[in-house]
Amino acid sequence: MATGRPGRTRSEKSWQAILEATRDELAAQGYDRLSIDRIATAAGVGKQTVYRWYPSKSSLVAECILRGYVVTPGIDILETGSVRDDIAAWLEAFAAGSRSPGGAALIRAGTAAAAEDEEVAARYAEVTKKTEDALVERLETGIAAGQLPAETPAATLAEALVGALLFKVVARQEISPQFISDLLNLVFTKESLHPEESV
Amino acid sequence: MATGRPGRTRSEKSWQAILEATRDELAAQGYDRLSIDRIATAAGVGKQTVYRWYPSKSSLVAECILRGYVVTPGIDILETGSVRDDIAAWLEAFAAGSRSPGGAALIRAGTAAAAEDEEVAARYAEVTKKTEDALVERLETGIAAGQLPAETPAATLAEALVGALLFKVVARQEISPQFISDLLNLVFTKESLHPEESV
Repeated sequence: MATGRPGRTRSEKSWQAILEATRDELAAQGYDRLSIDRIATAAGVGKQTVYRWYPSKSSLVAECILRGYVVTPGIDILETGSVRDDIAAWLEAFAAGSRSPGGAALIRAGTAAAAEDEEVAARYAEVTKKTEDALVERLETGIAAGQLPAETPAATLAEALVGALLFKVVARQEISPQFISDLLNLVFTKESLHPEESV
Repeated sequence: MATGRPGRTRSEKSWQAILEATRDELAAQGYDRLSIDRIATAAGVGKQTVYRWYPSKSSLVAECILRGYVVTPGIDILETGSVRDDIAAWLEAFAAGSRSPGGAALIRAGTAAAAEDEEVAARYAEVTKKTEDALVERLETGIAAGQLPAETPAATLAEALVGALLFKVVARQEISPQFISDLLNLVFTKESLHPEESV
């Protein structure tokens, strides 16, 4: 378990410096090669200070993920009136974030850490859940406005969208305008395209 | 770069033993804690033999992924006549594979390795591409049979499905029957559910 935010002013500064150094180290080195020594040096604290608060590499990375230093691009989901436009804006913002310097590297490091460690996975899931919840809320407003079918499984759709995007980053593939446009077409059909399924 | 399959019979046996030991080690330890020493011991070869063929941990894991020892559950996609039934069967087989002993652990280790290393990511993408291609082929037969709209972006749909499933495994969440049923409802609407989008 992460041991949480220390109380005193001086500690507070060291604590933030450690989390920032961890973020930079993750972006530069990935999870596998993360070094507590380098983090302590970059944060200007002793190695023992890092270990006192975070007894393991995974607890440190878990804290960074939970505090929004890693993975979450912190993208707000708009509510302009058209659910399609708002989901499109979110997809484009995510794609832009994943192209930013360090953005993709942080997503990859966070995903690797989550894949390797149960505690990190739990924090990672908490963070992606926040994004999914915001997406669900927007989709449900769209359903209420008659812009999506009432039967739309919003939670699963949100999870699938987040998973599909994160996976593109892990596979080092660009989230292209075509990919975004295809996803939108899958979710929002302009007309009644789906024929009765034959058996 | 992985150096490829050695030629002689004796080497062939050692080579397979190394890949099998790597698979077992990945399932038990993950990518981060993978030990070439333990792999060599388990395979009954010298450490130098492993290093001669695979100069780095990532080249060894990349080879395992490419040869189907990791990640790919090797699921055939059926062609029974109903594209919905066949995609459902594939989703259920994937979910079962991810619940099998070691199945989820291997997917997580492979994903972590891909997220951490460009060479592994390239092999990982080759393997998932095979699954995606098979899905695309089945979806296109479904489109041709009028069971899916002609406009269905099959490649993006296949990528999104694979990404959504793999991401569930990384986040240590069960691929539940409800999740599968929701995904199917997103892809296959029985009736014309999509109203004209209002502007």
